[in-house]
Amino acid sequence: MITVQQAEDIILSQTQDFGIEDIAYEHALGRVLAEDLTADRDLPPFDRPTVDGIAIRYAAYEKGSRSFPVKAIQSAGEASIPIDSETECIEIMTGAALDHSVDTVIRYEDISIDNGMANVSIDIKKGQNIHLKGRDKKEGNILVQANQIISPAIIGIASSVGKTTIAVKKLPKIIIISTGDEMVSPESIPSPYQLRRSNGITIKSALKKYHLEADILHLNDDYEEIKKEISRCIHEYDVLLISGGVSMGKFDYLPQVCEELGIEKLFHKIKQRPGKPFWFGKNQHQKLVFAFPGNPVSVFMCLHRYFIPWLEKSLEIQGNSPQFAVLQNDIEVPFALQYFVQVKLGTNQLGQLTAESVHTNGSGDFSHLADTNAFMELPLEQNSFKKGEVYRVWKYND
Amino acid sequence: MITVQQAEDIILSQTQDFGIEDIAYEHALGRVLAEDLTADRDLPPFDRPTVDGIAIRYAAYEKGSRSFPVKAIQSAGEASIPIDSETECIEIMTGAALDHSVDTVIRYEDISIDNGMANVSIDIKKGQNIHLKGRDKKEGNILVQANQIISPAIIGIASSVGKTTIAVKKLPKIIIISTGDEMVSPESIPSPYQLRRSNGITIKSALKKYHLEADILHLNDDYEEIKKEISRCIHEYDVLLISGGVSMGKFDYLPQVCEELGIEKLFHKIKQRPGKPFWFGKNQHQKLVFAFPGNPVSVFMCLHRYFIPWLEKSLEIQGNSPQFAVLQNDIEVPFALQYFVQVKLGTNQLGQLTAESVHTNGSGDFSHLADTNAFMELPLEQNSFKKGEVYRVWKYND
Repeated sequence: MITVQQAEDIILSQTQDFGIEDIAYEHALGRVLAEDLTADRDLPPFDRPTVDGIAIRYAAYEKGSRSFPVKAIQSAGEASIPIDSETECIEIMTGAALDHSVDTVIRYEDISIDNGMANVSIDIKKGQNIHLKGRDKKEGNILVQANQIISPAIIGIASSVGKTTIAVKKLPKIIIISTGDEMVSPESIPSPYQLRRSNGITIKSALKKYHLEADILHLNDDYEEIKKEISRCIHEYDVLLISGGVSMGKFDYLPQVCEELGIEKLFHKIKQRPGKPFWFGKNQHQKLVFAFPGNPVSVFMCLHRYFIPWLEKSLEIQGNSPQFAVLQNDIEVPFALQYFVQVKLGTNQLGQLTAESVHTNGSGDFSHLADTNAFMELPLEQNSFKKGEVYRVWKYND
Repeated sequence: MITVQQAEDIILSQTQDFGIEDIAYEHALGRVLAEDLTADRDLPPFDRPTVDGIAIRYAAYEKGSRSFPVKAIQSAGEASIPIDSETECIEIMTGAALDHSVDTVIRYEDISIDNGMANVSIDIKKGQNIHLKGRDKKEGNILVQANQIISPAIIGIASSVGKTTIAVKKLPKIIIISTGDEMVSPESIPSPYQLRRSNGITIKSALKKYHLEADILHLNDDYEEIKKEISRCIHEYDVLLISGGVSMGKFDYLPQVCEELGIEKLFHKIKQRPGKPFWFGKNQHQKLVFAFPGNPVSVFMCLHRYFIPWLEKSLEIQGNSPQFAVLQNDIEVPFALQYFVQVKLGTNQLGQLTAESVHTNGSGDFSHLADTNAFMELPLEQNSFKKGEVYRVWKYND
């Protein structure tokens, strides 16, 4: 049986490039940016007042002028208005384009205007209250680097620079396949020995964060049906995310079916709890099969610990650093498997992320998935974990 | 001029209840749950083996039996199969419903089966490897509490309990209005004294996190047009989110227009940077106007510091605790305003959230909104902030 680290290494060695497509910027939120966004002109594109008031030529003030005839009022969006003589001023609004004949702006709060004369009674500095052309960025400078998830701020920047079509990463084509004769649809009334399905819709919902619209399929434990459908799906999709059918049961057909279809096993079983029977493979066309054990907690853990990192690395998403939290209670682990414990995250006033573990009844107990936020990964080498120790966490429910 | 805390108090005293609606669970991701989700039967609903193997009656083992004739193979999803005599066993799969005639399960790994006899050679415990009926939750117990954002895990739980229609909070009807003659559409080539609009699409994108689809409108600095449109919008929408037109400029008509339309000013101007000229009001029908100053950074700050908390409180979203981070560099603030500095968040191996401030050229400089993640709120009482100190942060770009 391999370790969690070995499993991660094998999975992350199978990342793939799904290409790039151009889409309208209004639809790009949440997609992965595939090009740098650059300034199409200097930012700001002109010298602009940062306040409402008057614009003067500082040389006149320096020579003693304190009253300036108002030549004109210039609003934002108008062509720049020059002064004709050094001692004139322009009433000017925030965001207007300053003319080269003026070089200093004084706020309305610091002047009075009477009979067309603006009177200045405070000390001023040359060049004050002006946001200079090109001060933030020069034309051609990078504003947003490629390989990050497109946020509201990035949409706003794209809009500012007229980038109305954006190159984004294409997403893999994914089907989620749940298995198990005991699983009925959520609309059904289950018999006393049946359960309603949830793994498919849970995974589908989790992938929406990446704007990935996965298909869903449920298969009963019928060998021929499973073989036929896996054979079809491995042709039609890039990735199969399967739950169930990979353990020791008499009807756990998946490993055998995959082998018969030429899907090479890259590993089966990891020294971890939950999720030990996880099976992972690929075929000769680099189609991948993530076959998770069927319990809801196992599926959720394997999805966040293995599939999401594979997806983020395939899409080349940068800037996600590992997250650590401070354990809030002692934990004893009475087995030799790397344990992923469900925790409730919080923050304290030291700016630390805190993690309080919850007691569960194993991987079939999904009743705490909604009131926890993360799995804390407790190292395999230890059995005893103490309050105050810091370990890595894998967030969900974000 | 009021303080940030006073502004927050005024805004949060204006929260509103927009009611509840029922929607299909497949469309509920990201909405706010308006009812508790409860277990429709015990969880698990039957005694279920947690491993694949054989089910026996412990009393037989206790009396010395080590070889058990296999009466039948029971898969998950089948009705329970009883043993006929105490010394028989059932081959049984994970997730099947255990019959009352058996009470202990032994894994395939710990037995051998020859000629229809299962041979046990290890020590076992009564009741082992069984996830007992009702062990996680009893019928009627709350699985998910109301007033939280519906996550993938909650969708999965809803599916499990057959809750295919879910009560969620209705969302307010919102229009985002940008103003300014200098602002042209992102598709346009601006003149040297024009800029492309971005505030509308930025706010609209930020609200999508709450599945809130806001309308967008741009108005030029035309008094009559502004008055006509604000008058229409205040009837048609619950909330107006406006950018620009609230400062000292000759064409900053909004405060006057609002007053003439009977929209009561609750405050104008806050002791903060950016965002000082923020205007907030309501009319007699509790319609709200958040009128932010027009610079992109001011809009972004006011949105996250004031509007989002108002929205989350109105929707009664629980469980969001304040976030704090450790400042990574010294900052001097040379003005008597509460400063919101843009920071890049990170985490360190102590589980602490870290915040590195970036230098910007004022509220018109939006070039750092994409490479930062939060505003750090630096207390008004101080001017000097040191590396290692911990302050509150308001996240964006999540």
